Amino acid sequence: MKLEELGEFGLIEKIRKGLPKSDDFLGIGDDCAVIPCGDKELLVSVDTLVEDVHFLKNTDPYLLGRKSLSVNLSDVAAMAGVPKWAFLSLSLDKDRNISWVDLFLKGFLDVTKEFNVFLLGGDTTSSEVLTVSVTIIGENKKGSSIKRSGAKVGDLVAVTGKIGCSFAGFSALKNGLKGNDKFKLAHLNPYPKIMEALSIKEYVTAMIDVSDGLIQDCSHICEESGVGIRLYWERIPFCYADFVSKEEMLCGGEDYELVVCFDRRFEEKVKELDGFNIIGEVVEGSNVSVLKDGENVELNNCGFKHF
Amino acid sequence: MKLEELGEFGLIEKIRKGLPKSDDFLGIGDDCAVIPCGDKELLVSVDTLVEDVHFLKNTDPYLLGRKSLSVNLSDVAAMAGVPKWAFLSLSLDKDRNISWVDLFLKGFLDVTKEFNVFLLGGDTTSSEVLTVSVTIIGENKKGSSIKRSGAKVGDLVAVTGKIGCSFAGFSALKNGLKGNDKFKLAHLNPYPKIMEALSIKEYVTAMIDVSDGLIQDCSHICEESGVGIRLYWERIPFCYADFVSKEEMLCGGEDYELVVCFDRRFEEKVKELDGFNIIGEVVEGSNVSVLKDGENVELNNCGFKHF
Repeated sequence: MKLEELGEFGLIEKIRKGLPKSDDFLGIGDDCAVIPCGDKELLVSVDTLVEDVHFLKNTDPYLLGRKSLSVNLSDVAAMAGVPKWAFLSLSLDKDRNISWVDLFLKGFLDVTKEFNVFLLGGDTTSSEVLTVSVTIIGENKKGSSIKRSGAKVGDLVAVTGKIGCSFAGFSALKNGLKGNDKFKLAHLNPYPKIMEALSIKEYVTAMIDVSDGLIQDCSHICEESGVGIRLYWERIPFCYADFVSKEEMLCGGEDYELVVCFDRRFEEKVKELDGFNIIGEVVEGSNVSVLKDGENVELNNCGFKHF
Repeated sequence: MKLEELGEFGLIEKIRKGLPKSDDFLGIGDDCAVIPCGDKELLVSVDTLVEDVHFLKNTDPYLLGRKSLSVNLSDVAAMAGVPKWAFLSLSLDKDRNISWVDLFLKGFLDVTKEFNVFLLGGDTTSSEVLTVSVTIIGENKKGSSIKRSGAKVGDLVAVTGKIGCSFAGFSALKNGLKGNDKFKLAHLNPYPKIMEALSIKEYVTAMIDVSDGLIQDCSHICEESGVGIRLYWERIPFCYADFVSKEEMLCGGEDYELVVCFDRRFEEKVKELDGFNIIGEVVEGSNVSVLKDGENVELNNCGFKHF
């Protein structure tokens, strides 16, 4: 059997199954692993970006540098942690211009400064395929990290920002559409929602960032929490882009917004916060459904998968 | 200017220069970064292996899985730490057989079990070039990690194991030599010297693992400690392989042995330990020299560089 047939999540599940579990740490199955560290806990996540898979050739190196770290910080945001230390593994062809590397590093380091993160190490290797792998280590007070597994039936579901702008930007870039810079930037320069996560943390039962697509990422919460999620089409803050469908926006990845589940007692508190829209609720079941005028929306083959 | 002209260490120095420093942590410039963690400190290292750069196509996947983690553990050994948590980023082509992945994972997980390390996460992506990036997190009592920077003039220099077997094995594999399995295994399945490092830790002033080649790695100690190192040819435990020169063995990488500097007061103690050979001493200066019958050995263009 080939990897393509097993699928990305089949592969991850295969790896996960063979691993020992312990109450001392949290391993595969959330945005970050959680490691004990005195009266704190550390959050660790690794994200790898591959040329022609995660980004097009000739992507602006400054923005690529920014994005390489930002998507990683988004994983720490999804656990409501504070990012601290970064490690960068850069695999590059020998013929690459130093000016490219300078711009890439400037982008990466600008994001470290904006979020008070320190680049502490990594690796540099040659490779025919430009590959960037970033490891982030964040911090939280012991026991305070928000997991995917805490959603309860009756919770409400909220999301930050707009859904689908990154997919619209990706489509514009891929198809050579002129203009549409706002969408292109949503794709090329996502902003990790660290502050938003901290602002809502005390109300939250489960959280994830939208990397694979809103529907697929909600389904990860469903799996880990043993619940269903019902979203209301009319409440979803879709991106204002008319050249991709709303169905594509629900399934397209890399929004790097946050999906949060919270006890509905806190509905008014959440409404007072900046930047959150309540879009649905946690229900019994195991799937994500989207209701439009009371009818289920069909979403087939939804979400990004590598294999 | 192209990356090839700047060189790998030029690139690393370029990155390092732009970074803030602090007494709270140790960043680029050693085998691991060091992060505070209550009454402990954490050691973090990232190693990336790229097909056709670090390993030949068709390398046995079980051994590749083992080596991917072992080289990483070797970085923790070089700081005299205890490895704890691993993260695996695997970039693979879609057409790869699951059986390949199974064998790779078995190799990787076998090493986790041998060293009581837990695989806690990572990333899986598609890529045309097989790329494996591993992040290891180890532990030490606060302030007890051994750095490259502590060597003092007058210290003695010792090394574990044999030097050059990995290079001999690599040459045998690359040139299609039959047999020579012992050397091939030295290259394909290096054994991280965690226990050896712990056994000598209390005597050590500076330590590094031999990944770039004995000479080049000794020169890293020289740079970080502001000293010179003089090695005695006759005392170096060269590998018994007659198809590569001893000069090549000194410059070839990936032995994953340890080079340790220690106060010569402890000479007798170190001689009592298993597996260490005293091969030289720390002297004033800034370079590594090798004396053979009292004469300097010429070693040009020595050691592995990516660019």
